[in-house]
Amino acid sequence: MTDIKAALRAQRIETPSWAYGNSGTRFKVFAQQGVPRDPYEKLADAAQVHAYTGIAPTVALHIPWDKVDDYADLARHARDLGVAIGAINSNVFQDDDYKLGSVTHPDARVRRKATDHLLECVDIMDATGSDTLKLWFSDGINYPGQDDLRARQDRLAESLAEVYDRLGEGQRFLLEYKLFEPAFYATDVPDWGTAYAHCVKLGPKAQVVVDTGHHAPGTNIEFIVAFLLREGKLGGFDFNSRFYADDDLMVGAADPFQLFRIMYEVIRGGGFTDEVAFMLDQCHNIEPKIPGQIRSVMNVQEATAKALLVDRDALSAAQSAGDVLGANAVLMDAYNTDVRPLLAELREEMGLAPDPMAAYAKSGYFEKIAAERVGGNQAGWGA
Amino acid sequence: MTDIKAALRAQRIETPSWAYGNSGTRFKVFAQQGVPRDPYEKLADAAQVHAYTGIAPTVALHIPWDKVDDYADLARHARDLGVAIGAINSNVFQDDDYKLGSVTHPDARVRRKATDHLLECVDIMDATGSDTLKLWFSDGINYPGQDDLRARQDRLAESLAEVYDRLGEGQRFLLEYKLFEPAFYATDVPDWGTAYAHCVKLGPKAQVVVDTGHHAPGTNIEFIVAFLLREGKLGGFDFNSRFYADDDLMVGAADPFQLFRIMYEVIRGGGFTDEVAFMLDQCHNIEPKIPGQIRSVMNVQEATAKALLVDRDALSAAQSAGDVLGANAVLMDAYNTDVRPLLAELREEMGLAPDPMAAYAKSGYFEKIAAERVGGNQAGWGA
Amino acid sequence: MTDIKAALRAQRIETPSWAYGNSGTRFKVFAQQGVPRDPYEKLADAAQVHAYTGIAPTVALHIPWDKVDDYADLARHARDLGVAIGAINSNVFQDDDYKLGSVTHPDARVRRKATDHLLECVDIMDATGSDTLKLWFSDGINYPGQDDLRARQDRLAESLAEVYDRLGEGQRFLLEYKLFEPAFYATDVPDWGTAYAHCVKLGPKAQVVVDTGHHAPGTNIEFIVAFLLREGKLGGFDFNSRFYADDDLMVGAADPFQLFRIMYEVIRGGGFTDEVAFMLDQCHNIEPKIPGQIRSVMNVQEATAKALLVDRDALSAAQSAGDVLGANAVLMDAYNTDVRPLLAELREEMGLAPDPMAAYAKSGYFEKIAAERVGGNQAGWGA
Amino acid sequence: MTDIKAALRAQRIETPSWAYGNSGTRFKVFAQQGVPRDPYEKLADAAQVHAYTGIAPTVALHIPWDKVDDYADLARHARDLGVAIGAINSNVFQDDDYKLGSVTHPDARVRRKATDHLLECVDIMDATGSDTLKLWFSDGINYPGQDDLRARQDRLAESLAEVYDRLGEGQRFLLEYKLFEPAFYATDVPDWGTAYAHCVKLGPKAQVVVDTGHHAPGTNIEFIVAFLLREGKLGGFDFNSRFYADDDLMVGAADPFQLFRIMYEVIRGGGFTDEVAFMLDQCHNIEPKIPGQIRSVMNVQEATAKALLVDRDALSAAQSAGDVLGANAVLMDAYNTDVRPLLAELREEMGLAPDPMAAYAKSGYFEKIAAERVGGNQAGWGA
Repeated sequence: MTDIKAALRAQRIETPSWAYGNSGTRFKVFAQQGVPRDPYEKLADAAQVHAYTGIAPTVALHIPWDKVDDYADLARHARDLGVAIGAINSNVFQDDDYKLGSVTHPDARVRRKATDHLLECVDIMDATGSDTLKLWFSDGINYPGQDDLRARQDRLAESLAEVYDRLGEGQRFLLEYKLFEPAFYATDVPDWGTAYAHCVKLGPKAQVVVDTGHHAPGTNIEFIVAFLLREGKLGGFDFNSRFYADDDLMVGAADPFQLFRIMYEVIRGGGFTDEVAFMLDQCHNIEPKIPGQIRSVMNVQEATAKALLVDRDALSAAQSAGDVLGANAVLMDAYNTDVRPLLAELREEMGLAPDPMAAYAKSGYFEKIAAERVGGNQAGWGA
Repeated sequence: MTDIKAALRAQRIETPSWAYGNSGTRFKVFAQQGVPRDPYEKLADAAQVHAYTGIAPTVALHIPWDKVDDYADLARHARDLGVAIGAINSNVFQDDDYKLGSVTHPDARVRRKATDHLLECVDIMDATGSDTLKLWFSDGINYPGQDDLRARQDRLAESLAEVYDRLGEGQRFLLEYKLFEPAFYATDVPDWGTAYAHCVKLGPKAQVVVDTGHHAPGTNIEFIVAFLLREGKLGGFDFNSRFYADDDLMVGAADPFQLFRIMYEVIRGGGFTDEVAFMLDQCHNIEPKIPGQIRSVMNVQEATAKALLVDRDALSAAQSAGDVLGANAVLMDAYNTDVRPLLAELREEMGLAPDPMAAYAKSGYFEKIAAERVGGNQAGWGA
Repeated sequence: MTDIKAALRAQRIETPSWAYGNSGTRFKVFAQQGVPRDPYEKLADAAQVHAYTGIAPTVALHIPWDKVDDYADLARHARDLGVAIGAINSNVFQDDDYKLGSVTHPDARVRRKATDHLLECVDIMDATGSDTLKLWFSDGINYPGQDDLRARQDRLAESLAEVYDRLGEGQRFLLEYKLFEPAFYATDVPDWGTAYAHCVKLGPKAQVVVDTGHHAPGTNIEFIVAFLLREGKLGGFDFNSRFYADDDLMVGAADPFQLFRIMYEVIRGGGFTDEVAFMLDQCHNIEPKIPGQIRSVMNVQEATAKALLVDRDALSAAQSAGDVLGANAVLMDAYNTDVRPLLAELREEMGLAPDPMAAYAKSGYFEKIAAERVGGNQAGWGA
Repeated sequence: MTDIKAALRAQRIETPSWAYGNSGTRFKVFAQQGVPRDPYEKLADAAQVHAYTGIAPTVALHIPWDKVDDYADLARHARDLGVAIGAINSNVFQDDDYKLGSVTHPDARVRRKATDHLLECVDIMDATGSDTLKLWFSDGINYPGQDDLRARQDRLAESLAEVYDRLGEGQRFLLEYKLFEPAFYATDVPDWGTAYAHCVKLGPKAQVVVDTGHHAPGTNIEFIVAFLLREGKLGGFDFNSRFYADDDLMVGAADPFQLFRIMYEVIRGGGFTDEVAFMLDQCHNIEPKIPGQIRSVMNVQEATAKALLVDRDALSAAQSAGDVLGANAVLMDAYNTDVRPLLAELREEMGLAPDPMAAYAKSGYFEKIAAERVGGNQAGWGA
């Protein structure tokens, strides 16, 4: 139990700056009170999540949503708040030029522009000290024949190579895949296999990031996690949950058992280290944002605790014996354990309140930002 | 062949006013040149689609996107353009009050407001002479436990009953179902069964509308069409196509064989009449809007022509004989026929250009609206 | 807690006779040791499940797999073992005549034969005292055009009406739906809406049975449960679990959270009574059969205990207040509770061993049947 | 058009020996008249398919279903019939030892046995002159925790390496992937990415085979085809079609437009050569088997003809110009063309009847085998 607590104490979950801004569906963005109006305010909110959970010390930025004049100053601001800048997320999907693609666009001018933006993100990594660039491409096509599937792969490979070469010592990029949306017929990086194949060719600084909401129905995500870890190509996670498509709900909300299985494979495969980035990527469209993040961090933590509780010796023994029900029972015993008392205890040992949700609620922080953050433009996805 | 041509000549496909405005995904709305700035301009664009296809004489309105002071004037404007107002579509998903639902909201005040909007839509039917109200509810919940599934059905039933009672002579409403989006855990009218059950209880003026993009993967839509026709409860279609979710691509673009099968069931089930409304409901996010609608109308027309070509006597004979391959072959013979020459001929008989896409392209209409419609706010979904 | 224990003590879960026989996929049936060779031995095995769980007192029969000369004798045998005969399951899918359908077959002779079998099942209900007939039709077609979708509905309705009329006082039938398999293009009762529509027309003795493995990906099953309960049309469950299609795994194994949500809706909707039949319908292809059933019964019991633990007053309050996270948290608090100690306590109060799996394992029953049941034909699906 | 005809004349589609035997679902295998009783009779039936289509000159074998004492004699028999032996398909899923896996089984003894079978298949390649080994593993697990996902990959890699090393000059193996079935929680080669990663490590003699029925819902198969061709790793196809899971229907029956898109990517990517094997892998559960194969070969041929008709210059021009509708229209023009007259003409030029289905039907072959093949055991899947 001491080991488990030590492991849990060392866990690091990164929250994304954009989760604190307004978000929605194509049908409606519902604005919320107290939403940040700039990257500084986003960091302040993220710091709250860390303050109450103790395991969310970094914040991912999204460029250009989080563009500032002085990144060093932003990094300093983060440090003052007790957090640090995490991964830099590029955005090559919201400029009018990108209607038919960014790095895979048929027009070389647009590709150049997109790649330049990616290179700029590496500059920002240098400026902020971030070691991770997260690349998500919305590139794809809506209609069969609209563009050439294979030529788009050639263009993608060319752009990735250029960005890869620009990476400095200790820097890496994570290539994200997604089945569909916003492209509706073919997406240029639709699955882990595509991301993996590109990363293998590029080298060790290119790794795959698994967004738990980006798969076809029925996909076994923990299998992918186990496989990528075996290949040394799992760079990290974008955690969220979904019932249907990329719903971007709070991680663990839709299928807590799946989250547990994923965390089990992470631990079993040696991925529970700083080499793998555990990031949230969610949209709190109808629920309050800071509590939504706190709850999400707790959900990952609970799944992790259960995964750590698995009696791996007993599991191996049952597996080797071909004892189907016995092996499954070992796993389920851990999953069925109520780990909330353990985590409350851990938090108290860490000098935190045992119930982060309640502690945040009574802190008055929400009332404060609701009152103060009036006027100005609330941060959002900018669609 | 004379019969088939006569049937095709009588076909009526309704285009939606919102297809002429800007649309997009939650990630980005790409603005297009020449997009209408008000309902009058939308009707003008819709009239172009009718001018070149000859079978798109009505236009669906969406309230409040198409709110005007004088609906009689709008209807007159439509008539002057050679078209007419079709179904009235309600919108109870874009007001801040509707964050947690409209007619199923836990708060009676919000439900009252939503139902009042639906009643207002019936007023607009009276004013425009429209006989059809289309009801789509985005209502649902994102998280298990968020609200009570059953209580929401009670609230839905109550609101529907009030609207039903308000319908006048010759008026009806069509209840739309949708698997998910924007609600991500449970939608209050998720499937045809739910819509059907409510409509049966309400009476003959309530019917189900089938949006071809609103089903779970693997759902056999033509089965639903056949079943609803058998029950007298198929009110109409919202046509579009999809590969993944509610992609809202041009109808027939993703799976032309499915569209053919649907049209076959419509014809076989006696639904190829004015009792069933054939409407488009699509988003032309990256393709030009008027040509997108023209192509879509043509796709429905081609599928209809093929469905009319099925040799139903031969089909019945093979089916009765249990001749699996023979029966399938009769259907496929019709599907594999190239009906484009037939349709070109029909158009010429109707005094139209044989190739609507080419004719529109060289008409100069697009260049004209691109030049004229400058300034003002382009119409869009308003999310 | 006393109430919860009382409710749990009154729970009744029915196991199916066919779960004790060999089963498999189309690729291979792996035979197991000690598998029953006749209905009498199946009942003996089912009695073991009841002996160790205390809540599985009835056994469903499948005709003709469980055909015997003297059903009264079989019922007596069951009683002697401490169990009773439950639902009678018809089989109109394994005779060569049914290649193209049973009650929906194009040939009247085959339909007559199929309906006669259903009527025979009612005779067996009379003979065994069973009050429930479960109707599953594999009927459907593999290729578009193969048969007429609508005519098949007419034939289905005709057969169902005849069977309905034959039902005696206190008897009912449950109509099962299934998305696909063994039919691969269209199934004649593919979804709950179809089953519901037929049952509504027939009357109160016809109800819908929900097999948890028979839905399209992404279907919200608890919504269907809530809806059918509201309509008074939920007749029962065929419990099992699945990751992909109709995998027929142990209930609760694939998604224990979903099972909990289903049981919550059952309880919330007043369905936790004898009016709703809670049946297992699973295939233990690779795991031992009796322990597979014991574990499944325990999984349902655990989900039920958690569902009973939901603080419904707190839930209602949070729902009414529009507190998204608060309402979700109330539900999750119950789900996250470890109910195994409570159930162990309950079992001891009922005079049972606290751990049914361990108690069965050390009982020596398996060793006994493995040694005794040698020779003869093991029971199986007979495909 | 001359080029197109030449290409079509050179096309080669392989039919599988098992398609001529009885098959079914887990619910029922419906026996058919005239079904072969041994590999010799299967080859005779396959020769009929070639005789009427002119483009099906090879037949895949399945070991042990097609085990014979003298493979040289079998190959000679094939030649006498005008066909040749194609790919050798291994079977490590129907022995009782393989209940928990074959090459990934936890027990080394079982793995040895399975690998030995694969090596035996290479011996049969040597004996028959076949250059292709097709490896499909049903290996996987049904329950979380049942076995270790990663260890199973290690075992798989070890076995594949041994088989790879055994391959002779001019021999290769094709690794098949499948989402699920018969394993229901995790499959050891579930997707193209897994197959690809193993093949890349092994070398040029290991390639991926795409079974069109083995994907998750919504998977874009033509993307995978384009990607694998770009990587030089597309070894071939197992063609069939499906609406839901691995339905094994006739190729092109469920989604002819998808088949066309796949064939377009094959041609565009330079895969329309002997390097890529075009094989059928289907189950004719309810339709007659030889006509089922003839129709399937014709379906692939029609899709190929349409794909060859695509005006690639016009397509490229529209794609480069970002003309979404124009590019799509170029593709659809080819798809909408009725190629049946062209193919009838081609057949006559090849000395064949223009309508293979009709010609076979009136040949009297079926009546002959129905009368002659009486007694003995009909070939089947042997499940």
